[in-house]
Amino acid sequence: MRPQRHGGCLYFFLVSILLLLVVCFVTAVVAEGVEVMAAAEEAQLLPRPLVIELPSAAAEGERELPAEVRCASWRLAAEANNLAPWNVVPEECAGYVREYVNGVSYRSDLEVVAREASTYARAARGGDDGRDAWVFDVDETLLSNLPYYAEHGYGLEFFDHLEFDKWVEKGEAPAIPSSLKLYNEVRELGIKTFLLTGRSEGHHGVTVDNLKKQGFHDWDKLILRAAADRKKTATTYKSEKRKDMEAEGYRIIGNSGDQWSDLLGFSTSARSFKLPNPMYYIP
Amino acid sequence: MRPQRHGGCLYFFLVSILLLLVVCFVTAVVAEGVEVMAAAEEAQLLPRPLVIELPSAAAEGERELPAEVRCASWRLAAEANNLAPWNVVPEECAGYVREYVNGVSYRSDLEVVAREASTYARAARGGDDGRDAWVFDVDETLLSNLPYYAEHGYGLEFFDHLEFDKWVEKGEAPAIPSSLKLYNEVRELGIKTFLLTGRSEGHHGVTVDNLKKQGFHDWDKLILRAAADRKKTATTYKSEKRKDMEAEGYRIIGNSGDQWSDLLGFSTSARSFKLPNPMYYIP
Repeated sequence: MRPQRHGGCLYFFLVSILLLLVVCFVTAVVAEGVEVMAAAEEAQLLPRPLVIELPSAAAEGERELPAEVRCASWRLAAEANNLAPWNVVPEECAGYVREYVNGVSYRSDLEVVAREASTYARAARGGDDGRDAWVFDVDETLLSNLPYYAEHGYGLEFFDHLEFDKWVEKGEAPAIPSSLKLYNEVRELGIKTFLLTGRSEGHHGVTVDNLKKQGFHDWDKLILRAAADRKKTATTYKSEKRKDMEAEGYRIIGNSGDQWSDLLGFSTSARSFKLPNPMYYIP
Repeated sequence: MRPQRHGGCLYFFLVSILLLLVVCFVTAVVAEGVEVMAAAEEAQLLPRPLVIELPSAAAEGERELPAEVRCASWRLAAEANNLAPWNVVPEECAGYVREYVNGVSYRSDLEVVAREASTYARAARGGDDGRDAWVFDVDETLLSNLPYYAEHGYGLEFFDHLEFDKWVEKGEAPAIPSSLKLYNEVRELGIKTFLLTGRSEGHHGVTVDNLKKQGFHDWDKLILRAAADRKKTATTYKSEKRKDMEAEGYRIIGNSGDQWSDLLGFSTSARSFKLPNPMYYIP
């Protein structure tokens, strides 16, 4: 038996080495491609460096920190808007992000933000003149695209518009439960709900169907991105739409979004709620 | 033996009940006191509710999350500026915060922000006209008051100005190593460094001594809070000082602070860096 088992091991060992080499090569090629695409895509938009340096003290002779600690710091920095625009999750954090979004922490993080928003909504409601408004982003705010990202490396792959569009057109994105609860509470308080999404107007029908199927009803406006807005950053596009709301006489008392570009810019909300999202960044 | 053991159990049971009642009573009194103080102190400043609800789904019949997960969510929400102003760390998170600030995560979180800032500083420097400026907060940004907070429950105790002043007057706050490194890098790039602190002007001498002793040298300005600025929020006070810098012709390209009130308001920096601080909140 022994020789046979050793032979099996050797075979397995060699195949593993070969597979590892293939993976390394593919990764290197993809990474380079992503960098080039990223540089080209972002160059016009952003006067910022695209370098992401994860904290490792090893180079300076200090004790190296575990990847989990480094990746948690990366995620925190992203949530606090400390990072330069980033295109993909750092490679060493792929596993960390996968575990986070599939674990209890992501759910808990979403819940805290929703509860804080709910408490605020009850206190901030200005009156019964029907002018209080709350802006909700759609993707990763009301609806979750986790099933899509599960098939695409949880943010490790460079964003593929065509593939993502196919997913959107299925209309099968599930609701984020804590957001659905907040959405209903906000509506019950008599606050107008404006859904402001980066999805294109061509996806109006499927977005309406998906939202309704998941329990979101009776919004006052659903604003999708028109062709004329396609070249704007999300920050500019969404700020302009908020400015329109103000011009129509609405008081934007709350704004929920998973991207800083949902919340910053001009005509910002009295208070903003940043939902966690470690998978992608939209400028 | 049995009767004796039962007697011991009963005695133990009764003492436990008594202790629980005492703890409940003390907790209620302390909580009420904190709320009253908080309400009084914040009423003029902040049109926001001071409720902190930690995420627990138990009340709704869902599975309860471990305290560590809930406290991590609370900390993340604070860092993403999602929370209403808070006065003390939630009681159940006392241990979590203590472990965080004394562990590798806090150091790692500080390092990521400093490295990101450093990368940006190198790219953002505008020219050699001596007009580029970087604003640094002092407490929990350049200097650490961890030795003080270790003696005061790591943010679990309500802030005591008199006690904290005594600590400041010792001049023994250690440098935050990653901030010292960033500070020196920024200076070497020829960027002016403005130290903008909520400390009062009466602490000018001891602050200078403490900073120098810890390796911070050659700042261009150290701005402390004058008596006239004492009733302003930190956001207003610091915004006004940044506006003065701009009026003097400086371009504020970077701003590092552990409080959102260091970074928000008007005359904001081209880019801001929020250092972690789960121990206290300054409006």
